Amino acid sequence: MRAVDLIIKKRDRQKLTTEEINFFIEGYTRGDIPDYQASAWAMAVMLNGMDLEETTDLILAMARSGEILDLSEVVPIAVDKHSTGGVGDKTTLVVEPIVAACGLPVGKMSGRGLGFSGGTLDKMESIPGFRTNLTTEEFIAQLRTVGLVLTGQTGELAPADGKLYALRDVTGTVQSIPLIASSIMSKKIAAGAQAIVLDVKLGVGAFMQTLTDARTLGELMVAVAELAGRKAVALLSDMNQPLGCAVGNALEVKEAIDTLHGDRGPADFREHCLVVAAHMLTLGGKAPDEPSARRMAEQALASGQAWEMFRKLVIAQGGDVSFVDDPTRLPSAPLVEIVPAPRSGYLNGINARIVGETSVDLGAGRAKKGDPIDYGVGIVIHRKVGDYVAAGEPLFTLHANDQTRLDSARQQLLSAHSWSDTPVEPLPLFYGVIK
Amino acid sequence: MRAVDLIIKKRDRQKLTTEEINFFIEGYTRGDIPDYQASAWAMAVMLNGMDLEETTDLILAMARSGEILDLSEVVPIAVDKHSTGGVGDKTTLVVEPIVAACGLPVGKMSGRGLGFSGGTLDKMESIPGFRTNLTTEEFIAQLRTVGLVLTGQTGELAPADGKLYALRDVTGTVQSIPLIASSIMSKKIAAGAQAIVLDVKLGVGAFMQTLTDARTLGELMVAVAELAGRKAVALLSDMNQPLGCAVGNALEVKEAIDTLHGDRGPADFREHCLVVAAHMLTLGGKAPDEPSARRMAEQALASGQAWEMFRKLVIAQGGDVSFVDDPTRLPSAPLVEIVPAPRSGYLNGINARIVGETSVDLGAGRAKKGDPIDYGVGIVIHRKVGDYVAAGEPLFTLHANDQTRLDSARQQLLSAHSWSDTPVEPLPLFYGVIK
Repeated sequence: MRAVDLIIKKRDRQKLTTEEINFFIEGYTRGDIPDYQASAWAMAVMLNGMDLEETTDLILAMARSGEILDLSEVVPIAVDKHSTGGVGDKTTLVVEPIVAACGLPVGKMSGRGLGFSGGTLDKMESIPGFRTNLTTEEFIAQLRTVGLVLTGQTGELAPADGKLYALRDVTGTVQSIPLIASSIMSKKIAAGAQAIVLDVKLGVGAFMQTLTDARTLGELMVAVAELAGRKAVALLSDMNQPLGCAVGNALEVKEAIDTLHGDRGPADFREHCLVVAAHMLTLGGKAPDEPSARRMAEQALASGQAWEMFRKLVIAQGGDVSFVDDPTRLPSAPLVEIVPAPRSGYLNGINARIVGETSVDLGAGRAKKGDPIDYGVGIVIHRKVGDYVAAGEPLFTLHANDQTRLDSARQQLLSAHSWSDTPVEPLPLFYGVIK
Repeated sequence: MRAVDLIIKKRDRQKLTTEEINFFIEGYTRGDIPDYQASAWAMAVMLNGMDLEETTDLILAMARSGEILDLSEVVPIAVDKHSTGGVGDKTTLVVEPIVAACGLPVGKMSGRGLGFSGGTLDKMESIPGFRTNLTTEEFIAQLRTVGLVLTGQTGELAPADGKLYALRDVTGTVQSIPLIASSIMSKKIAAGAQAIVLDVKLGVGAFMQTLTDARTLGELMVAVAELAGRKAVALLSDMNQPLGCAVGNALEVKEAIDTLHGDRGPADFREHCLVVAAHMLTLGGKAPDEPSARRMAEQALASGQAWEMFRKLVIAQGGDVSFVDDPTRLPSAPLVEIVPAPRSGYLNGINARIVGETSVDLGAGRAKKGDPIDYGVGIVIHRKVGDYVAAGEPLFTLHANDQTRLDSARQQLLSAHSWSDTPVEPLPLFYGVIK
């Protein structure tokens, strides 16, 4: 078997066999197949597609390119969640404590932010001392003792995916639905997941811009999960406007903490978390159906047990819990400005992508890998699409470390808001569920 | 400008500008743009195409990636020829001496054989001492004094093409018509050509399998030549059966020498050479039209002047002329077997690709770059498509260095011949001319 023949096969729209996909991924992982062959192959896949079976083979081959975590002795069903990434998406910080508080242990490996999309690890690292580089042994031990883990991917999981993703990023082959699905699912399977709730974001602030693309990705992931012997549910959720109100690392942690305190926190974000948590609890066998799972989740918030779980998580991973007990101590920005609405009217849109990019410009995110992050800066929007706002009312608050950046962010963010003189429907939280 | 954005543009079927193509090729030549980006780009070009202007820009950018030969002080119009490669194609060995003998100096840079397709340099190197690694200075000096040069590409010409071709070879991106056209034309332009006769082979033994593909490539090359300020003519010629009779290095040199001696040599090959030579002489302004150019070419063969030119070429490049004066001294094979026709009938096909592959298997060609070559081995077919052959008459002769290889070649070559009980039309030499 030669790599070039497999590239040609995919170039010519032929289907690759399981053996061929294994050969390619194993060879690429070992370095026998060079980057220049993998990138040509990825472009052929990007333009000619892969079917369900090929995608499943790719997922399994990438998952097997490194260690596969076996959590069967720690949890009855290892349930995981994955968000395709968005602006203001601090869901994991709330959902995982809820689920763990309901008695279903969750160990999650998260990523860092890149571009306009934030990353869970960056958010958690705004808590001084919080470690996100647990070893596999530490991961399993904490899952057993605390029932909740939130860390970075351990180096040994799905190395083929890490290598291929870095290559796709610089070769114009990111936006391939089968490759996106393979990247997500291979990491989840390698991390030991038996059941996965997929939060597929769609809209201007998401990788998937349209409902059609999001649905295609969601359906593909649910179908390949089944072929791979796993269970999955995909939620199609809105990312046209930011989720919740806070965008920026410490600001998002504060919003998550508010939400974990029961009835504080933005209503849309709280609702989003309860729906995701209910699906996880159902998949994980903790509840017979979503309505009862939902009640369990609400109870975990109301009773303070979810909040207590979050504190345990922070303590277990070396974080200074005094910072979350008093979130005003978390990193903050020297310049804070409340920006009033420039006009009266109904909010027609708050472009999530522009909000995300503004947040990066303020220093909260990375333009490229390895860029430093300012945990204190960011944005809090005060109104959401559909709201009526009177001129002069607070529209958003900027947290900046420098006046020039603040001035530029104010302009950008004002331009992200669009207005209507007539009433506007609020945006839905979800567009559908794929089971 | 970023390489990844140009890959994405081509991936999304958008047209690249002159500046973008220059940026990409210059960056790739310098090594700033890595192979893995170039291969993803090449796959996007392969699958999404390039238009006339993009192809012309690519040709000029690749030609300018190194030195461009200026032959204007040596020849009034620098005329070149290029064959897209085939089996038994020793045309250059006969055509260039004819044209030079008619008073039009020709300096040609040729290539080596790879796969089932032979290479002019390999053939000439079966003449002991013949050098194919002339420097640019030697090339120009010999063109001035002898009027005929036949050497390898000097290192400095179109380095981007050399680099990109090697990459395409291992990434499934060879069979792209715009990239094939760019590779051919950039080298010709870098080598100083002002007018080019393109011999576009088509059929089972050629890279272009169909008349449609060959015509597309021919039309593209003629059109881009004009946009690039050059003249070109494309001949669409048959490569379903081998050209002439001999396939193998020294065997082909012998057949070329026969042909240069006037009326010896296979009729089809002689005719092919006269047509190519007539087009070169017309393009080069040595004759007002093809019929008179054709008469000049016939005269150069009949008078012995073309043969004399060939001898001068061999001597000028260090070859031992005694080997061409007495071709029986050229490398030969220890085992020679005349294989008789297994049946009577009309020859319906002699699969040129199988003939070429058999010749490689006998040791006359390379499966991969750098493989050694046995100059003596090869095949001489005795009959052509359309001929009636009686059972037991000589069908082909094998020249081998080993009995096992000979036995296997005999089987392969018999299978390359297909038969008919009813008369079969001979194959045309040419399917069209594009001016």
